[in-house]
Amino acid sequence: MKERGLDAYLIPSGDAHASEYVADYWNARSWFSGFTGSSGLVVVTHTEAGLWTDGRYFIQAENQLSGSEIKLFKMATPGVPEYKDYLADPLPQHGKLGFDGRVVDTQEFEELREALKAKEITYAYSEDLVGLIWEDRPAMPTAPAFEHTPRIPCATTSEKLTAVRAEMAKHDVSAYLISALDDVAWLMNIRGRDMAHTPIAYAYAVITASEAHLFIDPGKVSVFAGKLEAQGVTLHDYDGAAGFMGKLEGKLLINPRKTSMLLVESLPKGLQVKKDLPEDAIQLLKAIKSTAELENTRNAYIKESVALVRFLKWLEECPDVSAITEEDVVRKLTSLRELMPDFLEDSFSTIAAYGANAAQAHYRPGTETVYLKPEGFLLIDTGGQYMDGTTDTTRTIRLGPITDEMKRNFTLVLKGHIAISKVKFAEKTTGIMLDSLARVALWEHGLDFRHGTGHGIGFCLGVHEGPQGISRKSTVELVPGMLLSNEPAFYVDGEYGIRTENIIEVVKRCETEYGAFYGFESLLYCPIDMSSVDVALLDAGEIEYLNEYHKRTYDLVAPHLTADEAAWLKKATMSV
Amino acid sequence: MKERGLDAYLIPSGDAHASEYVADYWNARSWFSGFTGSSGLVVVTHTEAGLWTDGRYFIQAENQLSGSEIKLFKMATPGVPEYKDYLADPLPQHGKLGFDGRVVDTQEFEELREALKAKEITYAYSEDLVGLIWEDRPAMPTAPAFEHTPRIPCATTSEKLTAVRAEMAKHDVSAYLISALDDVAWLMNIRGRDMAHTPIAYAYAVITASEAHLFIDPGKVSVFAGKLEAQGVTLHDYDGAAGFMGKLEGKLLINPRKTSMLLVESLPKGLQVKKDLPEDAIQLLKAIKSTAELENTRNAYIKESVALVRFLKWLEECPDVSAITEEDVVRKLTSLRELMPDFLEDSFSTIAAYGANAAQAHYRPGTETVYLKPEGFLLIDTGGQYMDGTTDTTRTIRLGPITDEMKRNFTLVLKGHIAISKVKFAEKTTGIMLDSLARVALWEHGLDFRHGTGHGIGFCLGVHEGPQGISRKSTVELVPGMLLSNEPAFYVDGEYGIRTENIIEVVKRCETEYGAFYGFESLLYCPIDMSSVDVALLDAGEIEYLNEYHKRTYDLVAPHLTADEAAWLKKATMSV
Repeated sequence: MKERGLDAYLIPSGDAHASEYVADYWNARSWFSGFTGSSGLVVVTHTEAGLWTDGRYFIQAENQLSGSEIKLFKMATPGVPEYKDYLADPLPQHGKLGFDGRVVDTQEFEELREALKAKEITYAYSEDLVGLIWEDRPAMPTAPAFEHTPRIPCATTSEKLTAVRAEMAKHDVSAYLISALDDVAWLMNIRGRDMAHTPIAYAYAVITASEAHLFIDPGKVSVFAGKLEAQGVTLHDYDGAAGFMGKLEGKLLINPRKTSMLLVESLPKGLQVKKDLPEDAIQLLKAIKSTAELENTRNAYIKESVALVRFLKWLEECPDVSAITEEDVVRKLTSLRELMPDFLEDSFSTIAAYGANAAQAHYRPGTETVYLKPEGFLLIDTGGQYMDGTTDTTRTIRLGPITDEMKRNFTLVLKGHIAISKVKFAEKTTGIMLDSLARVALWEHGLDFRHGTGHGIGFCLGVHEGPQGISRKSTVELVPGMLLSNEPAFYVDGEYGIRTENIIEVVKRCETEYGAFYGFESLLYCPIDMSSVDVALLDAGEIEYLNEYHKRTYDLVAPHLTADEAAWLKKATMSV
Repeated sequence: MKERGLDAYLIPSGDAHASEYVADYWNARSWFSGFTGSSGLVVVTHTEAGLWTDGRYFIQAENQLSGSEIKLFKMATPGVPEYKDYLADPLPQHGKLGFDGRVVDTQEFEELREALKAKEITYAYSEDLVGLIWEDRPAMPTAPAFEHTPRIPCATTSEKLTAVRAEMAKHDVSAYLISALDDVAWLMNIRGRDMAHTPIAYAYAVITASEAHLFIDPGKVSVFAGKLEAQGVTLHDYDGAAGFMGKLEGKLLINPRKTSMLLVESLPKGLQVKKDLPEDAIQLLKAIKSTAELENTRNAYIKESVALVRFLKWLEECPDVSAITEEDVVRKLTSLRELMPDFLEDSFSTIAAYGANAAQAHYRPGTETVYLKPEGFLLIDTGGQYMDGTTDTTRTIRLGPITDEMKRNFTLVLKGHIAISKVKFAEKTTGIMLDSLARVALWEHGLDFRHGTGHGIGFCLGVHEGPQGISRKSTVELVPGMLLSNEPAFYVDGEYGIRTENIIEVVKRCETEYGAFYGFESLLYCPIDMSSVDVALLDAGEIEYLNEYHKRTYDLVAPHLTADEAAWLKKATMSV
C-alpha cells in the first residue's frame, strides 16, 4: 500500500461475475482474513483492518477473526458505520483507495464513489495486492463443462435467444452483456464444474440482434462446441471478452450488480451503457420456470424427498445418536442423495447443526467434532443439484426431550411456514407484502428472526437465485412459475435454532373480476416432526393443511420406497 | 395555445403547496373539466383533451365528463398510458408544453422532463391559460387565521424550531423552505380558514439556524402577530417569499413534492437545493404525535364517538328510512358534531352512500337526491376537525335485509380490519409489510379492494397526512405516536360497498431481546354492526377482539350520553 501510495485497500468477496460460490482462485478475502463466510468485505488502512459482514455470520466471524487484528463490524447494527462511511475517516482529501476492480461490481463502485464524492478520491482499481502476497494461490479452474440435458426436454438456446432479444427490443439496446454465470449457463444450456455447489463455468455472453457470442475457455466446451454453433452461438476464449466489447457500438445492456467495474470502465467511451435493475431481463426470464422446467423440477424433488425420508428413518432408528457426529449427518445425506438418478452434487454445504450450533443460521459443521445427544433439536438444511432441478430443504428434528418453550416456538415457526404455504394472494403482490405472514405468530410473543423468509432457486443452477424473494427487500411481483423457499425460523443464541423450509412454486388459483389470484404449492414432501408441535396452538385450517401435506407426502413418496420404508413413512405422516 | 405556440397544455389539480383541499381560486382543473374529484390532470392538445384520474374516481369522472369532449384515461389500468408517455405523441421534436408552474411540484416537473427528454421540449411554465378565460375566478382567500390552542398545551413554536433545526443539521443545510401548508401550520401553531375541511392558511416558512420567517397575508395574523414574534418568528407578506429566497445563500432544503417548480426555478443559481424525500424531515416530526397531542386527540375522538353513537341511534330509531336522503345523513352527522366542544368543521365532505353508490369509494352525495330504503347497506365515511384533533371514521350500516353474500363479504372486510387492529409487529416494520393482513381473508375468496388500507392523519390538520401509511407504497417505518386509518373495504360495482374504518395509534407493546414490538390502539369507539356479521367465519381471537372493542366502547362513551342513549349503546355493544 505504501509503495503504491494507497491510503486504504478493499478486499471484497467474490469473483468477476458476483457469483455466490466462487472458484478457489477468487477466495482472496477468506485467505487474507481467515473468515470463510460467503459474504464479507475487508478494509485495510495503515493503522487498522476491519471486516464487514451480516447477521448470518456474526458468531462465525467473531470466532474466525479472534486472534487476528481484524476488527468485526456488524452490518445493520445500531452505531456501526457502513464500510463506505467508515472509509471517509482514514481517507484524506484527494486520497487514494485501491482494490481489485474485477471483484467490485459496477453498481457497488457507483455507490462507493457517491458516498466518497466530497473527498475527491482517486481509485486504483487494478490493484490485486492479495494476489501479490498469496504464494500458493490456486489456478483458475479448467474442468470441462457439459450440456444440460434434463430428461424432459426444455427450451433450446435458439428459443431462449428469441426471448432475450424480445427483452432487448423493449430496452431499446443493440447488445446485451450477460455476466452472471448462471444466466450464461441457462441461456447456453450448459453446466460446469468450476466451483463447488453451483454447476456453472466461468463465461460471458454478448447477444446482439443477430449474433450470440460465448466467451469461455475452449477446452471446457470442445466436446459439444458444434452443438452450440448449431444454435447460432459463436465461441471465443474467456479472456477475449473485454477485447470484443471494446469494438461494440450503440447501446449495451448490462446488469450492474453482476458486471465488474473493471470491465465496464474498459468499455469504449462511445458505447452507451444501460443499466438494468432491479429486474434484470434475463434474470426474470430464468426465474419464471417453463412447464418443462417445472415438470423436471417436480421429478427432482420427489428424488430429494425420498432421500430425506430415508435419512429421517435412519436417524430415528439409530440405536444411539450419541455415536453420531454432525459430520456423519452431512455424509449420510450426501450418500443417500448419491443413490438417486441424475444427482450431480450437493447444492450447498449441508448445515447439520446440533443444539446451540443451530442458533447460527449459516452454521457449517467442521471446526470441531460435535456429537449428537438424545435431547433437543438437530437442524438440517441441505440440498442437491440434480440434472433436473436444484433442491434446498430444512427440517428441525427432535432427538429427545425438549422444553415447553422449544415446543411452543417450533409451533410458532410452523404457523409462519403454513401461513405462507396456504395464502392465496392477488396478482401484483410482491414478496415484501407476504413476509409478515411468516412472522405474526412469532411477533405475537415478542419473537422474530433476522433473515428473510424466502429466496428464489435455480433449475440445476444457483441455490439462491433472483430476482424474487419473500423479505423486506423483495419488490418483485410474484408470478406463476417462480420458485421460492419458505423458511421462517427462530434462534436462541447459545441454546437452539428452529427452521422449517420447503421450496414452493407460485401457481395460479383462480381468476375473478377482481383479477388473478395466486398461491403456492410445495415441491418437497418430507414429514414435519409432529412430536415437536403443540397442536393446541394450531387452528383448524392449519391442522387441515398439515394433514393434507402429510397425506400427499405419503402418496407421492411411498411408491419409491421399500415396504419397510413406506411403513415408517406411513407412521410419520399420520393425521393429527 | 396557438398564439403562444403551445403544442400541448397541462391543467393539473391543486395549489402552489400541493394541498389536498384547495381554496376555490385554485380549482382550475374542476372549472375547466367539470370533474370535481380531488385528484386528476387534464391534457389539452390541438385535437384532443384527456383527463387522467385514479381508481377512486373512475365512475364519478365518467359521469362528470359525459357530454364533454374530454376523454377519460383510467390510471394504472392495462393499456392506458401515463400522461407523461401520452404527451410524447402530440409533442413534436423541440415542441412546446405549457402549464401554470405554480401548480406543478418540482418532483413532478423533473419526472416530466425525464420522460420527455428525447423530445427536447421547451417548457412554458408561466402560462395560466385557464386563468385568462375564467372570468368569475374566485379571489385568493383572506379569512383571518387563528392560534392553535388545544386544551392540553402542546409544544411551542420555539420548541418545534429547535427540533426542526436539529433535522437541518443532520441534513447539513443552512436553510429550510417549508411549503406544505400543514407543515407551516404545525410549526407556527396557527390554523386558518382558507379552504374547506383543512384548517390552514396560505403561507410559507423559511427556517435558518438563527431565524424563522413566516410569509403570510398580514391581515390573517394581525391579532396575534406579537405572539408569533415572541417565539422568534419574523413576519413577511405571502407574496414576499420568492423575493426573500432570491437572497438566500448556502444550501436550502425543500420537499420537492410540496414545492412548486416555479418557485424552485426562480431560486438563485448559487443556492444549492437539497431535496428531501421520501421522508421529509418536518413531515416526520409532525407525524409522530407528542404525548400532549395524543391526549388531545383521544379527547377529540371521544367527542366524535359520542356524535357517531347518537347518529347510529337516530338512524336505527327512524320510523321510516325511506323518508331520509343521503344528504339528510350528511347534515345530521354535521349537526351532531356541532354539539361537541371545540368542533371547527367537517374534516372532509361526508360520504353517505346508499346501496350501489357505496361502490364508488369516494362517492359524494349531491348530484341527485337519493332516498334510503329499508334494505341493504348505507356506508358513511365522515370526520371532523376539532381544536384537539382530526377524525375520520367509516361504518357500513345494515338498513334491512342483506344477502348471504353481503353478510359474508362484510365479515371478510371485518376480518381484515381486526387483523390490522390486533397485530403485534417488530420495530422497523413498514406499512407495506402489514397491508396484506387486511386482505388475506378477501383474497381467499378471490376478492380484493383497489386502494390502500391506511393513511396518516393530522392533529387538527389534514385528514390525510404523510409520510406513513398501510399500503403497497408505504415504505416508512411505523413508530409509536403515529396515527393511521385502518379501512379495508370491498366494492361490487352497481350493487354495494363495504368499508370499516377506525383511526389507530401505533403503541409500544413490549421490548424483548429480539427488539421492540409495537401494536395499534383504536382511537374511535363506535359499534360495528354485528347483525351484518357471520360469526361462524370468525375465529376465537377475532370474537375476543370484537367483544373487547365493544366493551371499551360502552365504558368510554356511555359516561357522555343520556340514560336513554346509554341504554341503546349497551344493546349495540353486547358481546357475541
